Amino acid sequence: MAYVLKNSKSPFTKIRSVPVDSVKLTDDFWSPRLADLRQATLPLQHKKLEETGHFFDFRRAAGLEAGQFKGLIFYDSDAYKWLEATSFTLASSKDDDLLRHALNFADLIKKAQDKDGYLDTYFALDKKSDRWKNLRDNHELYCAGHMIQAALAFRRATGNGELLEAAERLADHVIDTFGPGKKEGVPGHPEIEMALVELYRETGKRKYLDEASYFLNARGKGLIGGSPYYLDHAPFRELKHLTGHAVRALYLASGAADLYAETGDPPLLKALSVLWEDLQKKTYVTGGVGSRHEGETLGDDYELPNARAYAETCAAVANAMFNYRMLLITGEAKYADAMELAVYNGALSGISIDGTRYFYANPLADRGSTRRQEWYECACCPTNIVRLLAYVPSLFYGVSQEGIWVNLYGRSEASIELNGSKVVLRQETEYPWRGKVRIEAKLVSDLKFSLNLRVPEWASSAEIKWPEGKEKAKPGSYFSINRTWHDGDAVDIEIPLQVSLIVANHRVFEDTCRVTLKRGPLVYCVESEDNDFDVWDLELANKDFKIKDDFILNKKIVSILGKGILLRSKEEWTYAEEEKANALIARQGVDFKAIPYYAWANRRAGPMTVWILAPETADPSKSGQEISHAKQRIKQNI
Amino acid sequence: MAYVLKNSKSPFTKIRSVPVDSVKLTDDFWSPRLADLRQATLPLQHKKLEETGHFFDFRRAAGLEAGQFKGLIFYDSDAYKWLEATSFTLASSKDDDLLRHALNFADLIKKAQDKDGYLDTYFALDKKSDRWKNLRDNHELYCAGHMIQAALAFRRATGNGELLEAAERLADHVIDTFGPGKKEGVPGHPEIEMALVELYRETGKRKYLDEASYFLNARGKGLIGGSPYYLDHAPFRELKHLTGHAVRALYLASGAADLYAETGDPPLLKALSVLWEDLQKKTYVTGGVGSRHEGETLGDDYELPNARAYAETCAAVANAMFNYRMLLITGEAKYADAMELAVYNGALSGISIDGTRYFYANPLADRGSTRRQEWYECACCPTNIVRLLAYVPSLFYGVSQEGIWVNLYGRSEASIELNGSKVVLRQETEYPWRGKVRIEAKLVSDLKFSLNLRVPEWASSAEIKWPEGKEKAKPGSYFSINRTWHDGDAVDIEIPLQVSLIVANHRVFEDTCRVTLKRGPLVYCVESEDNDFDVWDLELANKDFKIKDDFILNKKIVSILGKGILLRSKEEWTYAEEEKANALIARQGVDFKAIPYYAWANRRAGPMTVWILAPETADPSKSGQEISHAKQRIKQNI
Repeated sequence: MAYVLKNSKSPFTKIRSVPVDSVKLTDDFWSPRLADLRQATLPLQHKKLEETGHFFDFRRAAGLEAGQFKGLIFYDSDAYKWLEATSFTLASSKDDDLLRHALNFADLIKKAQDKDGYLDTYFALDKKSDRWKNLRDNHELYCAGHMIQAALAFRRATGNGELLEAAERLADHVIDTFGPGKKEGVPGHPEIEMALVELYRETGKRKYLDEASYFLNARGKGLIGGSPYYLDHAPFRELKHLTGHAVRALYLASGAADLYAETGDPPLLKALSVLWEDLQKKTYVTGGVGSRHEGETLGDDYELPNARAYAETCAAVANAMFNYRMLLITGEAKYADAMELAVYNGALSGISIDGTRYFYANPLADRGSTRRQEWYECACCPTNIVRLLAYVPSLFYGVSQEGIWVNLYGRSEASIELNGSKVVLRQETEYPWRGKVRIEAKLVSDLKFSLNLRVPEWASSAEIKWPEGKEKAKPGSYFSINRTWHDGDAVDIEIPLQVSLIVANHRVFEDTCRVTLKRGPLVYCVESEDNDFDVWDLELANKDFKIKDDFILNKKIVSILGKGILLRSKEEWTYAEEEKANALIARQGVDFKAIPYYAWANRRAGPMTVWILAPETADPSKSGQEISHAKQRIKQNI
Repeated sequence: MAYVLKNSKSPFTKIRSVPVDSVKLTDDFWSPRLADLRQATLPLQHKKLEETGHFFDFRRAAGLEAGQFKGLIFYDSDAYKWLEATSFTLASSKDDDLLRHALNFADLIKKAQDKDGYLDTYFALDKKSDRWKNLRDNHELYCAGHMIQAALAFRRATGNGELLEAAERLADHVIDTFGPGKKEGVPGHPEIEMALVELYRETGKRKYLDEASYFLNARGKGLIGGSPYYLDHAPFRELKHLTGHAVRALYLASGAADLYAETGDPPLLKALSVLWEDLQKKTYVTGGVGSRHEGETLGDDYELPNARAYAETCAAVANAMFNYRMLLITGEAKYADAMELAVYNGALSGISIDGTRYFYANPLADRGSTRRQEWYECACCPTNIVRLLAYVPSLFYGVSQEGIWVNLYGRSEASIELNGSKVVLRQETEYPWRGKVRIEAKLVSDLKFSLNLRVPEWASSAEIKWPEGKEKAKPGSYFSINRTWHDGDAVDIEIPLQVSLIVANHRVFEDTCRVTLKRGPLVYCVESEDNDFDVWDLELANKDFKIKDDFILNKKIVSILGKGILLRSKEEWTYAEEEKANALIARQGVDFKAIPYYAWANRRAGPMTVWILAPETADPSKSGQEISHAKQRIKQNI
């Protein structure tokens, strides 16, 4: 999960990460989730990992227990991801139980490692002779990558470097095994690329960066069969489309972005930009990615089914990871917009509002059959969403030589090291529920730096006030205030949070004549629990919305109230002649309530939809406020 | 494939089939296809079946050749289906080569059969001990069913009863093996049910009917695991929804309909009616069925993706089979409508216009990547579409005690035996291209009977003239003329064939604000070859259409010409705020051409769509003829 390090060179980035413990969130959106994460989610996951054999597999490989390997071939990675998330959490807050669990597991990992550095508990004991035999399917490099990332996070959280030494031994073993003149191969599931670059950043050892380059550059030569499913059909720099398994594709792109951050290879950045543009045609309005259940794959351009969306939680996490890297490289706000979208919607929907249950797939419409589960045999999603959640504080800020970048808003206090000086920034806001933000600087002495404030693309306008001035800022950019800051100086940002209607390109078959309600960074949906009718039959009546401070379980939300027209079929019908369809439908005015998409499926099961039928024509009584849907407006332009 | 027999009792049917050779088609729609079938398709299939090992497997089982079994576990069934189609073809027309191939294969089948009657070449020799071990997956009863149906067709075509004797031995072996007090089980892939009922009809032996009943009644007891995928989760009579594998579900329903035809069990008919209604919510506008690629399954209600439609050719064939049976049982025109729809569209699209290539999946929208193939390793679809094509003549007519039923129209001469008298009916028409039909009766002597003329549900009106009168007939019914017919008496049917716009229920996400053009029984699509723009960007401009006599390759079609508006995105975009979407699209008037859906993908590859964006608002210059799409009309009713 972790990214560009503040102390690393990463010469080809505009922005560097801040440590996860440098930002303390005190808002009512993230901070209760982070408290749940520490108190409920991570302890429960530790229990599940024990129950399902993940830790047993390590004890077995370490010779501490006997029996058959339990679970799936990539089980090690789930446990490593838990350790990474737990480490981020421990970096931010103290928890004796979690710390003890983490220390024990770290100790166990070291015991399970072979003398030669190899580590994968599936290929221990009787399966030793199968090591490195099938890079496409066996996930050894994938597990190795997660081990390295867990070790890095663990060292940063605890100061204990022993696990990182083990990670270096594993990485060295990988280097000894793979490369030109050695065994040739690339992983079926990318991950090692990001891990090796990050290990390079931490240790300064060039060999890790070179090995990451090797794995990227060896793709497209058919070493694992040459299939587009694995993005092995063409060299990465020549790819025009992201294909195949959504998570693998986005992990590979993330690894390539990490490589660019260190190497600055222009064709790599060009390819990443092309692939990012391609990705936008394959991304849900929630930031979810990967439309097909078959093979967990990306669909064709604009193939974005709603009820049948796969939109795996891991893929939304990966989408956030990729966009975060692109943001750090370029400093361009569009990547922050895409990251925010995925984090606040498509990824966050992957975990229940109390942090105890998970989605693997995240449909955008449902009849009530999709429910979060306490665990999955394939536990990649539960252990991925916690990595992202625990890392959220770090996403809020970035630093550069010139100053500080504010990527996300939320009540918080950040303590940021800027060229040797400490800058404390206090955010006072109710974001994402309200659009007013005040950022106050606490400084030991005056300091000249630029404060780069993200103005979200979704904002209709934004006004920014600082001690010397006031300006309208352009949505979809960073607004830079370059001055000498004095202790107590404050900036006020005002972004009106109105409800906006989002429409989709007409090539998205499933979204034609439908709209999504969005407010600020949050995509909304209508769910049966709040509406006493079938929400699949709801047509928007007009554009008049009210917002309401509300709760789901004990978590604060803002809901949207509006007027709709309910389309009720008088008899069952699927197709009708256009002229006869009229008679088949009864229409009735209704009030409806919409809630943030991430919060759906936390109450009773029932129909849900993100895309609502667009208002058909104006209500004559609402003259001046009426809305006809986008296509009708377009029509006026003919 | 074959159905209720003219000589059987089938006491619970309103209509009986006529033999396939009793109707000679001379039209320009079917008769060129049937000529291709005999001259090209069936000989080519014979060659493919030889090349891919299907016949080898029989020779191997017969001890005539050595080696490993070739192909898939159900390969026998493909060869049987070819023999069934070839037999229907030989019944209608003479062909020495085909006859020789059929006789040789029939001989080979007998040699491959075990002394105890068992027959399945996969489970021959070394695999004998695996017989009947896994009814869910091993397709033995499925293959047995196809063997029986092939033998019945072969006997009727050639008069040679030896293969039917072998089929009876196989059926007896099945009876000896399965039933109460014997081995209990039901097939994972239904088919045996239809076959056994038909064998009962042919032989009059009750035991075959009883065994078919057993297989239906033993379902829902978990004998093959109790999964909805196999419709084994509840007794058939209690089912409310068709679930799981589309072809299996429809074969089971067809078998159940066959059973009802003989037993008249009221709960069975009730269940069939409920399942038929359910099926309508899972059927494409083309009559295709089965929306999901995963598991070749039926989707949820209204889950009908276009580009990702699976709509397997076999499932459309099965849909036609099921509706044909329901028509025979009830005499209700709605089943004839559904049968016609599937036959002329969703099934017929499964074979190229020259009869040499096939679709397995039949999408309703495409970017140009879906192309017909010469063969499939799993050859169920090629050998199923030929069964249906060869049987089409039989679908045209039915008989009952009271008279004759005309189900389909097309230039033809039928020679029908009615209560011992011969009635020749000559149809003079250009249907399906024109809506005028004249039916002339040729009789040796005067004969009193009812002539029941199908008036399609899609007709806007219909006028029927007979010697004594003239009447407007109700679309969606059979119009009955009960009189004494004299030689040379004629009936004129006039059904205006205008282009109509079909809309879908708003719960079909993919079809919202889209229309399908339909003319007569034919669903149309727009394809790139006929239009110099991307047809996915086409919006209908108005309701003024011209038709044009046309050709695709050398086959006659009628194409539809119309005016559209092309929506061109000025930049790439997926989502936009409704108010900004306006500026992203350029609109331009275009002429377009639509062709019958069944004829698509016979020329160069490119985008295609059945569902076209609906016209948004009326063109003021067309006052009186303008069209606003269905939802707008509905709006006027508020």
